[in-house]
Amino acid sequence: MTRAERLTQALEERRADVFISAIRPNQLYFLPHPEPSSVISRANCCAIVFGLNEPVVFPGIWISNACRDLLTDCTVIENTHGDPLPEDQLLVYLRKAGLKRIIVDQPGLAESLRGQIDGCQIECEDLGTEIRRKKDARDLEHMREAARIADLGMTAAFAAIRPGLSCLDVIAEGEYAMLKAGAEDATMSPAVGEGTFYLDSAENPRRLIREGDMIFIDMAIHVRGYLGDMTRAGIVGEGTEEQRVLLETVQRAYKTGVAAMVPGADGADIYRQVVTCFAERGWKDYYVHHLSHGLGLGGDLPRIGSAAADVLRVGDALSCEPGVYIPGLGGARVENMIYVGEEGPEELTRCPLDLPMDL
Amino acid sequence: MTRAERLTQALEERRADVFISAIRPNQLYFLPHPEPSSVISRANCCAIVFGLNEPVVFPGIWISNACRDLLTDCTVIENTHGDPLPEDQLLVYLRKAGLKRIIVDQPGLAESLRGQIDGCQIECEDLGTEIRRKKDARDLEHMREAARIADLGMTAAFAAIRPGLSCLDVIAEGEYAMLKAGAEDATMSPAVGEGTFYLDSAENPRRLIREGDMIFIDMAIHVRGYLGDMTRAGIVGEGTEEQRVLLETVQRAYKTGVAAMVPGADGADIYRQVVTCFAERGWKDYYVHHLSHGLGLGGDLPRIGSAAADVLRVGDALSCEPGVYIPGLGGARVENMIYVGEEGPEELTRCPLDLPMDL
Repeated sequence: MTRAERLTQALEERRADVFISAIRPNQLYFLPHPEPSSVISRANCCAIVFGLNEPVVFPGIWISNACRDLLTDCTVIENTHGDPLPEDQLLVYLRKAGLKRIIVDQPGLAESLRGQIDGCQIECEDLGTEIRRKKDARDLEHMREAARIADLGMTAAFAAIRPGLSCLDVIAEGEYAMLKAGAEDATMSPAVGEGTFYLDSAENPRRLIREGDMIFIDMAIHVRGYLGDMTRAGIVGEGTEEQRVLLETVQRAYKTGVAAMVPGADGADIYRQVVTCFAERGWKDYYVHHLSHGLGLGGDLPRIGSAAADVLRVGDALSCEPGVYIPGLGGARVENMIYVGEEGPEELTRCPLDLPMDL
Repeated sequence: MTRAERLTQALEERRADVFISAIRPNQLYFLPHPEPSSVISRANCCAIVFGLNEPVVFPGIWISNACRDLLTDCTVIENTHGDPLPEDQLLVYLRKAGLKRIIVDQPGLAESLRGQIDGCQIECEDLGTEIRRKKDARDLEHMREAARIADLGMTAAFAAIRPGLSCLDVIAEGEYAMLKAGAEDATMSPAVGEGTFYLDSAENPRRLIREGDMIFIDMAIHVRGYLGDMTRAGIVGEGTEEQRVLLETVQRAYKTGVAAMVPGADGADIYRQVVTCFAERGWKDYYVHHLSHGLGLGGDLPRIGSAAADVLRVGDALSCEPGVYIPGLGGARVENMIYVGEEGPEELTRCPLDLPMDL
């Protein structure tokens, strides 16, 4: 089924006429355009009404002309200098549309519409995030591209690591490589030091790298709206036996986690297996964050953490990112982008866990 | 007067015992540390109580160890695995502190404290942003560094512009130069095309630059917590007579604006003078944004726009950034960082308005 067909089905199940999206990832997902992230280029689209003959777009002033010129298969309600706010234009439109039941993905917008349209019921439900969970061919194509660029950037950053350079020197190489390769934006967060910090992006980025440091680099990039996300960790030089054990333990925890990411697996079980890897070393308390967030256009499902964990399904895409940060020793985190296929987990990011440095 | 003395004076005027800051720029401003942005490295510090013998810091878990180890002139209430939330630690602390009147800079925190501490009055007022408005020597030192790095990055980006390259190729050079020069983060937003868009950062960043394009690049960087911000515009090649008039008009509007930024000037007057530059060409409706925002650690005063405009004072630092974006012709914006000294406006960013390209 196409994206539009899946939405139609969800609307029929709920006996609703339309789905109004104010959330950018949902807007991008359902828009009939080959590269919607270059049109809805910022969170400035008030709402898009899906479920009629063609989508009706209510852009904010900053992207109104772009929407008018580029969204050829949509009705665009232009918003230019001196016009009423797009929220008001939406309300005027809906009052004339004769709809009986509307589903809105954002509580604030739902609240502002409720009681304003005679004879129309407003429900708030984020249909989009649920439908987006199962990745389709287009999702996978763009996620593979994001993963490829992430691999490139991480490899370039690690290749620049040597004592005496700063963290900024290193991530400058990685971010440069990823922008040149087509990422819309690229941010790398290096963490290096004696392990007195829990941090991931914290710490002084101007810090000079020293022999014996443990270092890890996380990143966030976007490629055609899709998140690229990975982390690699290493030791600058030989390091101590204890540091090597730390690094190997995190890598083993990662492998344990990803191996368990099969369709039907309960995220809570996967999380426990990862915690066990750390607990065996007495490091349970130093693993302080989630294991997985969903991947895609943003705010994605499923999630795996100590507070809440989903059961995995075929078509899920999620991170696997265990890490520990031990005062006086060092910190490490390893992360890949994972696709849950019928045959099991597939790593979308694929560069080696131990990346060579400039040593 | 020192920052601490100015805060003490403000507290005395309000007969308040302490100022509790939950807003990162205010926290950075008053902390007794040479580089607080490398310690409070993210918006994860719940609150800092200022006005006692030394600041009392309530960090979130991610930066707790960093605060403990690096903030030597503060009392740090550590927050580690299994501890109550720092919000709760703050309440416990305040209940024992015997304070009569507290000023809090964030409405949410003020609301959560109100009525929870016997005999203590909670007021919400953002004292910090007001005190931070008048720049001191340290502010200026860091803002000059941010401006120097911004100049470098913009010059590098423009030097890379040539037909056939993408916007990403260009900003990769600029961001690389700025990270290497010590910016903690660097984002450039290029806008190029036929002028059908109002946008600044919108549009497809993979678009290939063409001869005859109008192009402008805005940026946001941080250097020791301080914003670096500038915009340059140009024409790729000769362009048309009309494009050259557009570019010159924006440059003239910029010069008109900055010349008017003297102590005591009313921002509303300055705004009108800039609008007049565009109105004379019939382009009034294409100038759709503010002229100035404050500069510093974030959320700064003063502001100049159509909706609200402040009267300028000695010690102000603000952007001056007029621009117009005309469908079918092109868009241009010019922006510098301005310091309002006793003698008048000083441009902190100083590279030429017409930067050379790789043509």
